Amino acid sequence: MSSMLAVGSVAFDTLHMPHGRYVRVLGGAATYASIAASFFGPVQLVAVVGKDFPAEARELLRSRAVDLEGLEVADGLTFHWAGEYSADLNSRTTLQTDLNVFADFHPKIPEAWRSTRYVMLANIDPELQLEVLNQIKKPEFVIADTMNFWISSKLAELKKVLQRIDLLVINEEEARQLSGTYAMAKVARELLSMGPKSVVIKRGEYGALWFDHQDVFSAPAYPLEEVRDPTGAGDTFAGGLLGYVALKGNVENATLRRAIVYGSALASFCVEAVGLERLLTVNKGELLERFSRFHKLAHFASENEVR
Amino acid sequence: MSSMLAVGSVAFDTLHMPHGRYVRVLGGAATYASIAASFFGPVQLVAVVGKDFPAEARELLRSRAVDLEGLEVADGLTFHWAGEYSADLNSRTTLQTDLNVFADFHPKIPEAWRSTRYVMLANIDPELQLEVLNQIKKPEFVIADTMNFWISSKLAELKKVLQRIDLLVINEEEARQLSGTYAMAKVARELLSMGPKSVVIKRGEYGALWFDHQDVFSAPAYPLEEVRDPTGAGDTFAGGLLGYVALKGNVENATLRRAIVYGSALASFCVEAVGLERLLTVNKGELLERFSRFHKLAHFASENEVR
Repeated sequence: MSSMLAVGSVAFDTLHMPHGRYVRVLGGAATYASIAASFFGPVQLVAVVGKDFPAEARELLRSRAVDLEGLEVADGLTFHWAGEYSADLNSRTTLQTDLNVFADFHPKIPEAWRSTRYVMLANIDPELQLEVLNQIKKPEFVIADTMNFWISSKLAELKKVLQRIDLLVINEEEARQLSGTYAMAKVARELLSMGPKSVVIKRGEYGALWFDHQDVFSAPAYPLEEVRDPTGAGDTFAGGLLGYVALKGNVENATLRRAIVYGSALASFCVEAVGLERLLTVNKGELLERFSRFHKLAHFASENEVR
Repeated sequence: MSSMLAVGSVAFDTLHMPHGRYVRVLGGAATYASIAASFFGPVQLVAVVGKDFPAEARELLRSRAVDLEGLEVADGLTFHWAGEYSADLNSRTTLQTDLNVFADFHPKIPEAWRSTRYVMLANIDPELQLEVLNQIKKPEFVIADTMNFWISSKLAELKKVLQRIDLLVINEEEARQLSGTYAMAKVARELLSMGPKSVVIKRGEYGALWFDHQDVFSAPAYPLEEVRDPTGAGDTFAGGLLGYVALKGNVENATLRRAIVYGSALASFCVEAVGLERLLTVNKGELLERFSRFHKLAHFASENEVR
């Protein structure tokens, strides 16, 4: 069992949902990713918060085996984002972005963490992702997320990141934007040609597709009765995925497939309530049970097994 | 190995695709379904064509073990449909519908076929689907497709059909329309409450979801390099599914799961070329190979198998 490192945003989110308004909920990509990863082992969190960041939030993270040595506290306020979701929760518009202390953030990896083998670069400025990579000694497996904003504004930097990572985690629409093509098999080929050893395309309620140069894996999404809040689901997915890889200590095909399903299982909990609420009540037994449900959901016998 | 019966349209399609225009291509839901089902065993086709229906088309169907005793030839022209696809092939608009002999069609099931156990009611007027059911003696497994037009114009008749079938095959958008709800788990519950023992929701490039009252199965779609023509893919899926069930002679959960994957595999061939072109060149070896690819695509080890 190895530690993993997560670098990204810790934030407060104000969520305007069809079912209500939720003010200054603890969020941020690195928060979701760390909580998800913590189901599998210890997490090293590198992020910045303001002086307003409450002791209870620190305590919450610490209680989940998230090491906060890399959590910088800067003068000013913590990053705050406000957004409004559509009635079907399938799209959202940003109402407000207060970068606050995040505006001047430059990730500093504590000396003892620079030899960590499993690294997650959550969705932040690709220049910052490069700064992180320059501080890490010899990572075994680096995953990175990104978004439309960086694809259009910092493409050159993003391409440098892609040449130095193992797994790109990206949503379907952004994968099409970055690749400039439509069919997923072509999209994946295009993205792989940019450098990453493999790529996961997140498709929300349709699951995820993983490609490397030889193989492809389709992970299902569990059909839920109700989705309450998709915020952080993608970060939860990626954090859970890497946490499982770090636990297993290998990046074999079979491990990655199961890591993707564990990430999906955690994401399926994440969306069941607002913010981190549901994720924080999940226990190991429930997680294993949901993994089994995913297995049953996707399983069919190959011809030879049954005939 | 039992025969299966397919009732629906045999038509000529004029397809305006981004890559060209294809005039009066052999099509129709029952045609695609019959060709797909014929990979697994004999098919009994009940439909109507006009005097213009060419001998080569009859020969083609006969050569695939599709019995044409129930193919009525009426005075007039064969059903013709013309449609135009969007650039990404994800939507289409009808340019022309010439019902021709289909306008007065009332399916007549040949006496010898009335005890056929496996029946597919392709997407036609639910009143005609009921007429078919009234002629069938004691079917073991009936599947039916429908569309938005019947949901809005003949809901009462459609609901009568739903009470008499085993499996409803419906696309995602129409499933939401018919159920009046959004999340697939709820959609399925609503549709099951209308009568069918199980339901398959077709999601195109995202695969298919199958639900009964106890269980759910998610079938992947194969990420293809290029889709040339989605026409008939849903009918191919349903026909292949039922053909496999008829071959196995049971409707157990494991059989249905594999039937859905065989249907998906055949649909993945169907879309690779215009009309029936690709489907007609597929051989049994290729089909088995693609089934294996689907298996590899979706497979991951359950925890106990590996740890």
